[in-house]
Amino acid sequence: MRMFQNDYSEDAASEILVALCAANFEQRIGYTEGDPHCEEVRKLIREACEDPTADVEFRIGGTSTNIVALNGLLKDWEGIICTPDVHIAVHETGALVAVGRTVLPTHDKDGFLSPEEAERVSHFQTSTDQRMAKPGAVYIINTTELGGVWTKQRFDAICDWADEHQLPVFLDEARLASASAAPSNDLTLPHIAKRCTAFYLGGTKNGMLCGEALVINDPKLKEAFPYLIKERDKFLAKGRLLGVQFERTFMPEDTEPLWFPYTCQANDCAIKMRESLIEEGYKPYGDSNFNQQFFVVTSKQAEASAEACGCETFYTLKGGRQVIRFVTSWATTESNVDEVLTFAKQVIA
Amino acid sequence: MRMFQNDYSEDAASEILVALCAANFEQRIGYTEGDPHCEEVRKLIREACEDPTADVEFRIGGTSTNIVALNGLLKDWEGIICTPDVHIAVHETGALVAVGRTVLPTHDKDGFLSPEEAERVSHFQTSTDQRMAKPGAVYIINTTELGGVWTKQRFDAICDWADEHQLPVFLDEARLASASAAPSNDLTLPHIAKRCTAFYLGGTKNGMLCGEALVINDPKLKEAFPYLIKERDKFLAKGRLLGVQFERTFMPEDTEPLWFPYTCQANDCAIKMRESLIEEGYKPYGDSNFNQQFFVVTSKQAEASAEACGCETFYTLKGGRQVIRFVTSWATTESNVDEVLTFAKQVIA
Amino acid sequence: MRMFQNDYSEDAASEILVALCAANFEQRIGYTEGDPHCEEVRKLIREACEDPTADVEFRIGGTSTNIVALNGLLKDWEGIICTPDVHIAVHETGALVAVGRTVLPTHDKDGFLSPEEAERVSHFQTSTDQRMAKPGAVYIINTTELGGVWTKQRFDAICDWADEHQLPVFLDEARLASASAAPSNDLTLPHIAKRCTAFYLGGTKNGMLCGEALVINDPKLKEAFPYLIKERDKFLAKGRLLGVQFERTFMPEDTEPLWFPYTCQANDCAIKMRESLIEEGYKPYGDSNFNQQFFVVTSKQAEASAEACGCETFYTLKGGRQVIRFVTSWATTESNVDEVLTFAKQVIA
Amino acid sequence: MRMFQNDYSEDAASEILVALCAANFEQRIGYTEGDPHCEEVRKLIREACEDPTADVEFRIGGTSTNIVALNGLLKDWEGIICTPDVHIAVHETGALVAVGRTVLPTHDKDGFLSPEEAERVSHFQTSTDQRMAKPGAVYIINTTELGGVWTKQRFDAICDWADEHQLPVFLDEARLASASAAPSNDLTLPHIAKRCTAFYLGGTKNGMLCGEALVINDPKLKEAFPYLIKERDKFLAKGRLLGVQFERTFMPEDTEPLWFPYTCQANDCAIKMRESLIEEGYKPYGDSNFNQQFFVVTSKQAEASAEACGCETFYTLKGGRQVIRFVTSWATTESNVDEVLTFAKQVIA
Repeated sequence: MRMFQNDYSEDAASEILVALCAANFEQRIGYTEGDPHCEEVRKLIREACEDPTADVEFRIGGTSTNIVALNGLLKDWEGIICTPDVHIAVHETGALVAVGRTVLPTHDKDGFLSPEEAERVSHFQTSTDQRMAKPGAVYIINTTELGGVWTKQRFDAICDWADEHQLPVFLDEARLASASAAPSNDLTLPHIAKRCTAFYLGGTKNGMLCGEALVINDPKLKEAFPYLIKERDKFLAKGRLLGVQFERTFMPEDTEPLWFPYTCQANDCAIKMRESLIEEGYKPYGDSNFNQQFFVVTSKQAEASAEACGCETFYTLKGGRQVIRFVTSWATTESNVDEVLTFAKQVIA
Repeated sequence: MRMFQNDYSEDAASEILVALCAANFEQRIGYTEGDPHCEEVRKLIREACEDPTADVEFRIGGTSTNIVALNGLLKDWEGIICTPDVHIAVHETGALVAVGRTVLPTHDKDGFLSPEEAERVSHFQTSTDQRMAKPGAVYIINTTELGGVWTKQRFDAICDWADEHQLPVFLDEARLASASAAPSNDLTLPHIAKRCTAFYLGGTKNGMLCGEALVINDPKLKEAFPYLIKERDKFLAKGRLLGVQFERTFMPEDTEPLWFPYTCQANDCAIKMRESLIEEGYKPYGDSNFNQQFFVVTSKQAEASAEACGCETFYTLKGGRQVIRFVTSWATTESNVDEVLTFAKQVIA
Repeated sequence: MRMFQNDYSEDAASEILVALCAANFEQRIGYTEGDPHCEEVRKLIREACEDPTADVEFRIGGTSTNIVALNGLLKDWEGIICTPDVHIAVHETGALVAVGRTVLPTHDKDGFLSPEEAERVSHFQTSTDQRMAKPGAVYIINTTELGGVWTKQRFDAICDWADEHQLPVFLDEARLASASAAPSNDLTLPHIAKRCTAFYLGGTKNGMLCGEALVINDPKLKEAFPYLIKERDKFLAKGRLLGVQFERTFMPEDTEPLWFPYTCQANDCAIKMRESLIEEGYKPYGDSNFNQQFFVVTSKQAEASAEACGCETFYTLKGGRQVIRFVTSWATTESNVDEVLTFAKQVIA
Repeated sequence: MRMFQNDYSEDAASEILVALCAANFEQRIGYTEGDPHCEEVRKLIREACEDPTADVEFRIGGTSTNIVALNGLLKDWEGIICTPDVHIAVHETGALVAVGRTVLPTHDKDGFLSPEEAERVSHFQTSTDQRMAKPGAVYIINTTELGGVWTKQRFDAICDWADEHQLPVFLDEARLASASAAPSNDLTLPHIAKRCTAFYLGGTKNGMLCGEALVINDPKLKEAFPYLIKERDKFLAKGRLLGVQFERTFMPEDTEPLWFPYTCQANDCAIKMRESLIEEGYKPYGDSNFNQQFFVVTSKQAEASAEACGCETFYTLKGGRQVIRFVTSWATTESNVDEVLTFAKQVIA
């Protein structure tokens, strides 16, 4: 059976692979600088964001983009306000700490950073002069780690709070495509670009071999970034690899970026799976309507699902029941979903 | 005209691209761990090195591999002895310094680290108790930055010196294929593996999209590496991308690793170019017999060569004459070389 | 009125000052190495600890000692398990993060690190391979931030847990004198030295101008420390300043180290203050029987106490009542306490 | 015999000790903030420098001051241009590297940083885009490591160069008193304050137990410093210790700061020693006219001088002759110099 463990279990969408083959023998300068594919993508992304003065930079993955950008946004003694469940606070803690910046997690439990909690953390960290890491930026992620989609209202609220405190807002959009394609989405790229100091459009989780495109609006980060990617991260020598993939995704003759079809495929499969599993008696956890679906199951069912479909357990609830996650991708097909349903019927019986 | 600026100006050899397409839809766990392609390469490299207990890890490029490995080999207060021209001492200084390790360059001028200079630096750095960065490892690179190939005798001499001082030896082999294919080469992989604490086999400069394979013999570095790649470097989520490429390069049904044909193509073109340019009156700099060729030209010729063939200027000699570099790759053809000759005749006329 | 804000509000006890004047014109080598005063103290501390092979090093203050020692004990990617209220987790977070080490706070609320909470944090941090900061040591502090004194039983329990997990135990004893002199204390220096990888005896908070003496039992930390104090901390050029002070404190002709009289003076004053304030109707917070005393007061009383006696507010309880702290020192006299009582009567009336 | 190894071999001048005793029982807030002694010194130093808007901060020693200030002046990827002999390039390399900043030494051989060499290094480091540590500040030291005194002309030349390149100038004046009292000195504090971004007045080497006073003119460093001293260096809890000592040194009822008498004592002794040793046939190295005197001797004489007077060997010249250093201090007396002469006569005979 196809695995539903993650959205980077397959390599690249066919369109992307073909574009790579087509550009393979062009000779180009390395490191994303000065090659026509990267330059073209920069132009396309600036247009899509209605953000003509932004810098657009490319990194191979999310952690890479997060750490380099946050390192550039934060001063040496500053920390980043975020919810306690995000990657930089849990799985990447070491990486941000390794560059000397502090994670300042709130108590938000739903994955959305609230102005109230940001205020509480900010107040605490600035209450004893210069003895504590000073809040230096706000980090949010869309979709959230729990699959939540930020609404414009919620997004504006935290941006307003950050503005009042003169803090930059960094938006991790490794799953931007998923968020954009969600039915409840009312956030546009131009609005995001208008309010965020920096944010990135994720390619790795949306049909590319690898690649994230960071949009930078802050003059200091624009200056710092080219240095930091050499010092604190590493160059991909054949950097046009990133440009070619993003170029194909954003190709201008399409009416919309190519990633929407990928995402819609993933979302359609996910929603079909959700509805069918609920019909079979599975209890959903949260109300996700896109490519990450969570269900509450027994520990025995969790074990069986892990083995058969690669599902990961996210939480153990009180009483021992477990929250498992199914992830679909651009490569998931309807027949893959049918297989899951057949399996689920047996497990629940 | 084809550019001769670098050996990473084209993307990937056709065989590599085809292998990537073939493996594209296999579902795999991320991050190089546990996928069959990476595991297969690990086995093949251990066999080729006759080093059955080595760990084999994958990184996307040379700087990445250097920094993570040296960070793991050196203690917090230690430095690395190397020649003054190497990447980690010049172009990557910031990256090693950024993780808190010190570069300790010798005065060697030919690109080869000598035991005499290593001894001088070591003696100076340990002469005032604990006030100076202590030498903690030796870094050598094959081929050298100037295109020199290490002989077994020279290599054993610096390894002997390091052994006497109980210092680990780290060998950067981003251009291992070129070095191995050089007529003067008498260093074998098993001998390298026997004497080096860690070394890597470069893929980026030998027909792959990206990728270096690090061979680790030190128990402490084996323990540290998996942590350091998350903390100090970044994962490539779709890590099998590296495994698939190396697997194709090392495929067992071949009598020798696939990279030799690539390298021989590059070397043959380079030697043909060298001989023809010398015939035309060009003055060679050094006696390289592989894919990097250096010539002494006037500044006007250097400028013309930069524009026409992408040649970089490496040194300005006393009197103003300049040393320029031509680099061939697996993608260079005989007709590309012919074009260079036509151009060179005009420039020298 | 005398302030009760901290135990470092006065400079040095008279005996210490006199010792400094007496040794002032002796010529000595700098940096604590090789001068007879520092060497004598090393001998005295090893004897007092019954720990003949320990290294004894000197630093100017607690943060300095904590950061250098933890940096030496922890690997690059490791973190330190501690309670959430300790200095390294709150006021010094930036300092530990700045050297790239992670703080791993438990949920313990009483200031004592429990094996259960240590186990929970340890399990969580090691649950996803090498993606999270690995627990590398245990940090405890005596007396705790809330003024608690570790009993032998409690201390052995956390040491046993650490032993089972092969984790070093680091004990911050900036307030060792207070803890040792507490009536409930049953922890001896030899027992501490036997079980801790490293710990320090605080001078700054016990009658010295400055100075902490670190006892090191770990071979790796013994090797690292002399390098780390230059690299990560800074030398006091006239290092015998620390030796002379500690020597006077530990002078062998005394039946017990000089710090006990200092501490007893502080504790006696504190207990007299506690009893009298309770009599006046003040509600104590916790049951401290030494130089830090906590009381629950109204916010108005807290404000008045801050202004009159320098009391700091430690917590705001639900409902708005506040926990304030009175700190006595070797320089506090009975008449100082009488002044506080007079003031307290007025405030409570 | 008295040692001539360093100018911090004695503790404190009597006037300083008496001032410390006098202020000992005053209760003060810690960490140099808000106590009247530190505030008074800040005022006195601003007046002496005619620099009314400067911030004045205190650190315990030179390395501490250098590292914290340079960390604040330099961006993460920047380096510091300096001569190759200075402490931060040799004995403290590890400390600057440990905070991730790069040392960029010139080839100047006389201890004075020249605009020509600064230009050469700057040009090299900025020649390949963002691949190398970018020059971010200029570091000079007065007196130089070889005992040279900066003239106004030389000082202005390097400041002019730095201005043209918009680089801040950092002046290490750990030996400011010696430099100021040198007969050839024509640099005034107000002129230094006008041209330097930051500089410090050294106390440790001029009769204090410890202490350096940093004068900051840069708004960014003013903001950063209070954070950096907690994060990257350490507080001295009883910070007024520094204030009291500097206050006594700068006491307003004196016609000139107290340090001139100390320095004059040291310089007079040094010059007497120089003249007498030359008369005895000793060959001076350089033309120092203050408290550091260098002589060329045989290796046997160097050994005897090290044993008898604590002289350090600074260089071994070609042919094996050695340059040794005699250092006088505020505590050196004429009879100490007479002892040296008696010894020198025997050694040279």
